[in-house]
Amino acid sequence: MSELKINHRLIMTPGPTMVDPRVSQAMSNQILGQFDPDFTQIMNDNMAMIRKSFHTKNQWAFPIDGTSRAGNEAIIGSIVKPGDSVLVPVFGRFGDLFVELAQRAGGRVTTMTADWGTVFDQDQIISEIKRLKPKVVAIVHGETSTGRLQPIDRLGKAIHEYGGFLVVDAVASYMGTPVEVDRWELDAVVGGAQKCLSIPSGITPITFNDRFAAEINQRKRVEQGVRTALDQSGSQFITSNYLDLTQLQDYWSPRRLNHHTEATVADYGLHEGLRLALHEGLPARFNRHLRVHQALNAGLTAMGLTIYHQGDHEMPMVTCVQIPDKLDGDAFRQSLLEQFGVEISSSFGSLQGKIWRIGTMGYSAQKGFILTFIALFGAALLQAGISVDLKAGLDATQAVFERPNAPVDSLVSTL
Amino acid sequence: MSELKINHRLIMTPGPTMVDPRVSQAMSNQILGQFDPDFTQIMNDNMAMIRKSFHTKNQWAFPIDGTSRAGNEAIIGSIVKPGDSVLVPVFGRFGDLFVELAQRAGGRVTTMTADWGTVFDQDQIISEIKRLKPKVVAIVHGETSTGRLQPIDRLGKAIHEYGGFLVVDAVASYMGTPVEVDRWELDAVVGGAQKCLSIPSGITPITFNDRFAAEINQRKRVEQGVRTALDQSGSQFITSNYLDLTQLQDYWSPRRLNHHTEATVADYGLHEGLRLALHEGLPARFNRHLRVHQALNAGLTAMGLTIYHQGDHEMPMVTCVQIPDKLDGDAFRQSLLEQFGVEISSSFGSLQGKIWRIGTMGYSAQKGFILTFIALFGAALLQAGISVDLKAGLDATQAVFERPNAPVDSLVSTL
Repeated sequence: MSELKINHRLIMTPGPTMVDPRVSQAMSNQILGQFDPDFTQIMNDNMAMIRKSFHTKNQWAFPIDGTSRAGNEAIIGSIVKPGDSVLVPVFGRFGDLFVELAQRAGGRVTTMTADWGTVFDQDQIISEIKRLKPKVVAIVHGETSTGRLQPIDRLGKAIHEYGGFLVVDAVASYMGTPVEVDRWELDAVVGGAQKCLSIPSGITPITFNDRFAAEINQRKRVEQGVRTALDQSGSQFITSNYLDLTQLQDYWSPRRLNHHTEATVADYGLHEGLRLALHEGLPARFNRHLRVHQALNAGLTAMGLTIYHQGDHEMPMVTCVQIPDKLDGDAFRQSLLEQFGVEISSSFGSLQGKIWRIGTMGYSAQKGFILTFIALFGAALLQAGISVDLKAGLDATQAVFERPNAPVDSLVSTL
Repeated sequence: MSELKINHRLIMTPGPTMVDPRVSQAMSNQILGQFDPDFTQIMNDNMAMIRKSFHTKNQWAFPIDGTSRAGNEAIIGSIVKPGDSVLVPVFGRFGDLFVELAQRAGGRVTTMTADWGTVFDQDQIISEIKRLKPKVVAIVHGETSTGRLQPIDRLGKAIHEYGGFLVVDAVASYMGTPVEVDRWELDAVVGGAQKCLSIPSGITPITFNDRFAAEINQRKRVEQGVRTALDQSGSQFITSNYLDLTQLQDYWSPRRLNHHTEATVADYGLHEGLRLALHEGLPARFNRHLRVHQALNAGLTAMGLTIYHQGDHEMPMVTCVQIPDKLDGDAFRQSLLEQFGVEISSSFGSLQGKIWRIGTMGYSAQKGFILTFIALFGAALLQAGISVDLKAGLDATQAVFERPNAPVDSLVSTL
């Protein structure tokens, strides 16, 4: 077997995204033992930075040692007992994943669906919430499969009127647009690593509040082998041990109760990724994503392409573009990758073959990459016989970058 | 928040162990998309190398994106349905973990126990197997909590006479001593990353055979969102989605069905770690661990310390040494770490405060580190007022390294 040789790529997918080289450098440090005070300090730093990243005062803010769906499963598997009612508004592939996770946890799942490419009016969801009063409402914030950003700021209030819980998958939106955990009354939220945070997949920041913690701790069962006489076992314990949030609380708190062996270098990457993001400043970071998204949209439109459901609650880090008629979208993607090292994505289900998805997340959301992408993407389209106006595309992209900065506090209202 | 600054350490614990710098370098490469042909080739390489590392022809040999217990849970959670009978011979803390995982999966668990510091006679286990005929027997190979290596080569045959399944936790023994999956008839096995393979925690190589695959696929349920009309759903589906081996089979095979986002840089580390190990040669690697273990034992004994249950099925990568009378073992460990940057471990349960555990795994199992460790450990003991003969310890350690190499094929019989 020969040594790894990683070829150059310009990754413009909705994740995994390219990693900031400073993150890779941080991750190349030698490891520390998991109970080494130097390492537990890094764990504490990460908790503090995760809190800031989620705009929350929650005590519970730590990473799961697994990819994003491990974070979703940890939350759903801990809050949903067999027989519990769960409402999932589905508007894309990752809503389906919530349905799947809740069913596997034994939940009685009700869904409501919006057409792919659209989002729900929150009033529509609220009226279903008032009717069903489900224990858990699980919703996706940024649905990468369709490129939509679902407004979720008013759901928590409606759910808390009768004592339910709001669980949010913010994997793709996290660190690219505000996820206001406290202000929006989100009870448990999953962020993503390999999306706008731009660190490698394999670790997943989550947060949940004290009311959520109190609920899941009714199921607490400290495992055999580290259990003491003081540890009561709840009934209807959580099925997973690895993704049992109540045990992870003991690991991510001064008790430091032995559980898994924390994934050291993933924590290094998380530390550096969060540090860079907070140093940039969250409002500036969110504005950068929005600006890049507008520039890419303008460039693609000026080239002559059509944006899918343009202006309709687009995620400011995913651009969905219609595949030109008579072009084989997958063959084109393959050729773009083979010839120029540029990667874009297809989509799922009914959108497969209809749209390409272009991600502008974290490290990849910068002017130089966007201009390079427009140039290479346009060139590949010309090569494939699609008539596009490459110069107009580049000019329109450039023009957005040259516009004066909008005030950062105007961000939320523009979404 | 300031940048990471990782202080120098000599990690001599039974995991996580120091990482070979060549592995860290491999992991600092830029990421690739998970469906990029360059990356799926790395996935295929990893499967091929995992097969070799387990001495198996199994088709199913791939990593789990989680720490070792995620691997254990993936296997137990997939094979154990509610009501299934499970036998766990327990001789330390990680046997308890199997009990816990099997109970959470709904298994009816029977245990048999050996005193801590000892292992089972295989005939004892076999007679219990014949009496109970459990669907699953789950056993630890290398029990790091007590430093014991359990012989397991004859269990598979007894279990296969009536059609049961043998599951083995080889997390700590893997890549430090033979784990002969095919010859010993092991049905499903978990290896470790942060032990003798010496790569960072967070990814876990596993393997299972076709008979095991056929059994778990009766529970198969392709998830909503990627399910097609051709996908049947089994009854009594696996509770976890993230650790559902039947879905992971679809991801780690030509179907490449979308599941999680593979942890790219963890796969890079696995690739380099396995490549280095296979390049060294497994027999040479196993002999190296044994030689280092003998050298450390000889040195500690010559210094005047007492090895815990010396010669009684010791793991050739963990040395358990009795804490000298009247010494506070944890305070000593803390001082060793603070003054010299040397880390060793305590133990669990009844052994806490009685023994220290010193690991010599993978990258840390080399002459220079062992001599340095003896020198610093002896110096710290002298400083703590414990009278040890440091020169005798160093001489005895050195002498073992100067002995001619034993023929590599003699390895297994010396264990």
